[in-house]
Amino acid sequence: MPPFGFLHMRVWASLFGRLLRSPRAVCIREVHFHSQFAEAVLTSQLKPQQEKSNFIIKTPKGTRDISPQQMVVREKILDMVVGCFKRHGAKRLDTPAFELKEMLTEKYGEDSGLIYDLKDQGGELLSLRYDLTVPFARYLAMNKVKKMKRYHVGKVWRRESPTIVQGRYREFCQCDFDIAGQFDPMIPDAECLKIMCEILSGLQLGDFIIKVNDRRVLDGMFAVCGVPESKFHAICSSIDKLDKISWKDVRHEMVAKKGLAPEVADRIGDYVQCHGGVSLIEQMFQDPRLSQNKQALDGLGDLKLLFEYLTLFGIAEKISFDLSLARGLDYYTGVIYEAVLLQTPAQAQESFNVGSVAAGGRYDKLVGMFDPKGHKVPCVGLSIGVERIFSIVEQRMKTFGQKIRTTETQVFVATPQKNFLHERLKLIAELWDAGIKAELLYKNNPKLLTQLHYCEDMGIPLVVIIGEQEMKEGIIKLRSVASREEVAIKRENLVAEIQKRLSES
Amino acid sequence: MPPFGFLHMRVWASLFGRLLRSPRAVCIREVHFHSQFAEAVLTSQLKPQQEKSNFIIKTPKGTRDISPQQMVVREKILDMVVGCFKRHGAKRLDTPAFELKEMLTEKYGEDSGLIYDLKDQGGELLSLRYDLTVPFARYLAMNKVKKMKRYHVGKVWRRESPTIVQGRYREFCQCDFDIAGQFDPMIPDAECLKIMCEILSGLQLGDFIIKVNDRRVLDGMFAVCGVPESKFHAICSSIDKLDKISWKDVRHEMVAKKGLAPEVADRIGDYVQCHGGVSLIEQMFQDPRLSQNKQALDGLGDLKLLFEYLTLFGIAEKISFDLSLARGLDYYTGVIYEAVLLQTPAQAQESFNVGSVAAGGRYDKLVGMFDPKGHKVPCVGLSIGVERIFSIVEQRMKTFGQKIRTTETQVFVATPQKNFLHERLKLIAELWDAGIKAELLYKNNPKLLTQLHYCEDMGIPLVVIIGEQEMKEGIIKLRSVASREEVAIKRENLVAEIQKRLSES
Repeated sequence: MPPFGFLHMRVWASLFGRLLRSPRAVCIREVHFHSQFAEAVLTSQLKPQQEKSNFIIKTPKGTRDISPQQMVVREKILDMVVGCFKRHGAKRLDTPAFELKEMLTEKYGEDSGLIYDLKDQGGELLSLRYDLTVPFARYLAMNKVKKMKRYHVGKVWRRESPTIVQGRYREFCQCDFDIAGQFDPMIPDAECLKIMCEILSGLQLGDFIIKVNDRRVLDGMFAVCGVPESKFHAICSSIDKLDKISWKDVRHEMVAKKGLAPEVADRIGDYVQCHGGVSLIEQMFQDPRLSQNKQALDGLGDLKLLFEYLTLFGIAEKISFDLSLARGLDYYTGVIYEAVLLQTPAQAQESFNVGSVAAGGRYDKLVGMFDPKGHKVPCVGLSIGVERIFSIVEQRMKTFGQKIRTTETQVFVATPQKNFLHERLKLIAELWDAGIKAELLYKNNPKLLTQLHYCEDMGIPLVVIIGEQEMKEGIIKLRSVASREEVAIKRENLVAEIQKRLSES
Repeated sequence: MPPFGFLHMRVWASLFGRLLRSPRAVCIREVHFHSQFAEAVLTSQLKPQQEKSNFIIKTPKGTRDISPQQMVVREKILDMVVGCFKRHGAKRLDTPAFELKEMLTEKYGEDSGLIYDLKDQGGELLSLRYDLTVPFARYLAMNKVKKMKRYHVGKVWRRESPTIVQGRYREFCQCDFDIAGQFDPMIPDAECLKIMCEILSGLQLGDFIIKVNDRRVLDGMFAVCGVPESKFHAICSSIDKLDKISWKDVRHEMVAKKGLAPEVADRIGDYVQCHGGVSLIEQMFQDPRLSQNKQALDGLGDLKLLFEYLTLFGIAEKISFDLSLARGLDYYTGVIYEAVLLQTPAQAQESFNVGSVAAGGRYDKLVGMFDPKGHKVPCVGLSIGVERIFSIVEQRMKTFGQKIRTTETQVFVATPQKNFLHERLKLIAELWDAGIKAELLYKNNPKLLTQLHYCEDMGIPLVVIIGEQEMKEGIIKLRSVASREEVAIKRENLVAEIQKRLSES
């Protein structure tokens, strides 16, 4: 078997390569809900079967249809992401769209209010899944699986308020890769960061950096700064906003809303402005306050080992130890990371901001929350922010006016003659049965020009033309749409000739 | 580009060919919910974070996780189905998992009670989609699309009562292909039947037949038998049950529950026992009662034309005109069809019954129900019952004890030496970067035997072995897991040699 991921890389490069290498700026914050959809209001000319209240034809708030053009882009990107997951030996898993409501409680901290619940129609109380991590942990606990490397591509649902976070959808696709099991420290963690690098480099989205931190370093930092333990989660959530709002605003939230003493907030402020490489880890080891905290030292020790492995993987220069990285979700227990695209000066000018495009971390206690006896299965994983990546690529293609083929049709069956439907139907069945992708117009007597225009519009490369004269001579004409050249071929050689042409192109 | 569908056919054949050609019987009715899952009840040894009521770790009623083994089977089958849809020129579309509740009302007749509603959490009232057809019609109307050939692979949700219909899940995958647009009669309809034949033949599930009827023939039949027009839909639903329950029971339902006169029911009984080919269509044209009904004649005329095209496609012998075929859904307006697998005598003995494996029909008024001005877009389509197909193939593989590889890993990086983690990490990164699918054990000092056993268990074909001696000599050992042969290769030639070996296999 040829190297799967690589094959797709080449397909990808040939389709999107030129566009993706372009440094042009794109602002994805301009993506609004439903802007592309006609919202038609039902008027008074209602048919009897439509006697409902006036309604608007639309998709639910925060959701959208994915058009064939968008699907093509998505499939290319997902093929590449999945190719990378397979390159690292992952199995594929799928879980239901909804879970028992109680499975999702106490897992998402402040975000729990964004969970979609199903109506109580009798029976169990259900909620749509909010991410793919909690269902994975539930799966491991339910089936008593102690070790597993799996990926999962699927939709998740969050009742985000569109006015707060522009451009975010309430239904979106996630691509997760996770390694569950008790292993020697930091080897799976380093592989997760390697995977993020491979995917982001492979997609040629521009330069990026991966911020890394550790929940234990954060907790240790909170402790030595004087944050009461009961406020760790709340303060962690505030710190997590540092990539979206300024330190001043975060400080205000911590002091005014979360009741933190101002001097404690200021001590935190000194730390969260630090970022760097291995030398910053060494510096923190020497930090007079932090070095007194056992948890912080454990975290720093693991981060040091992690950087050792990242150097062996050749990706250390992409990684930044960043004390401001917090990650909002409650379930993380160790190393955490988040990849961001770096702005070019031109992008900064156009206030280009895509935020995080991949993220993850270690969650060693989540499986234990589901296990009847509390047995833990340590886990580490990552999630690729494919929706943001889709937006970036779609916007770039739009900017460059690139036309995307939404079908893969190879051959069109045409005729210049009237009353030739029967011959066309027999011929196209022969092509389909030979595995050739073929189309014809669903008309008894279409005009030849209409048929040829259709091929040009749809990017179909070959046309088979059959008429009375050809029938008599036992031949068929094969036309190249690009060159407009036509050759006559013996009827019985048609399939072989088409297959030869297609394998050459 | 090589013929896509064909390539996959070959992959498929090599994996499942032998199994699928076997005539062994399998009873999918034995698939019960959750039987494979441990249902662990939380005991009293709860951790502080688990202070909830005792709960069972499970997936919601009627749903299940899809294991990696199942995912491999599913992906092969879906690749083949999608390959066929693409061979016929379809574009891919996706729609949200939920729709505005009002979009789904008055579309599903008696089945509407099975729709999952979302909880009213403020804002719009939403329901999970029940099929992929209604969202497609909503998409066409919303975007004023008059012509489109699309496919859609996605989950749908129905609150089926598992006690009534054994083996059905409440969450399941659908694969739909539809042609929307005003065309000359029966050409797209014939293509839909051709697609069903290509897929069912390609999957080698055994012999099958496609029953065909027309809603207008049914309505005409009801009219001439004396069914009041207000009861057409209700009687249609009863007739639809004829493949599951006997005529006696259907007759009882129509008379006792739906208030039909017994003599009317008996007249219907005479018709619904008829099935055959073109000659039956001719016979019905001559039927003294049916030939008086305009609707019935329209339907029969179209069916005659359809058979003409099916003959040209070479599939007429797979099609049976069957007056008992009704299809439960309200939205069909013309030709309807349903494919069923035929039992071998052995299967009949084991009461093998898989019911319908593909179905569809013409629905010319559904889009108009969404359009503000009632503009119609005629549509015809089909849905492949992939869940039943998955079950059949999974059961067959289980019967034959076939082991499925759930990963695609090509090379394993091993060492017989202690303290060789750094070398292994450097080496595996080199393989990943070359697009090679590679794994190692996440241990500092794994035993060589453990490493080699892992390869055998997982079906990994090649092992790269690195140790102190090899390091000194600048070589590396490449081992074939199957033959246990080892060869020494220059370190710098490793990637090229692996790629050569993989391309040969």
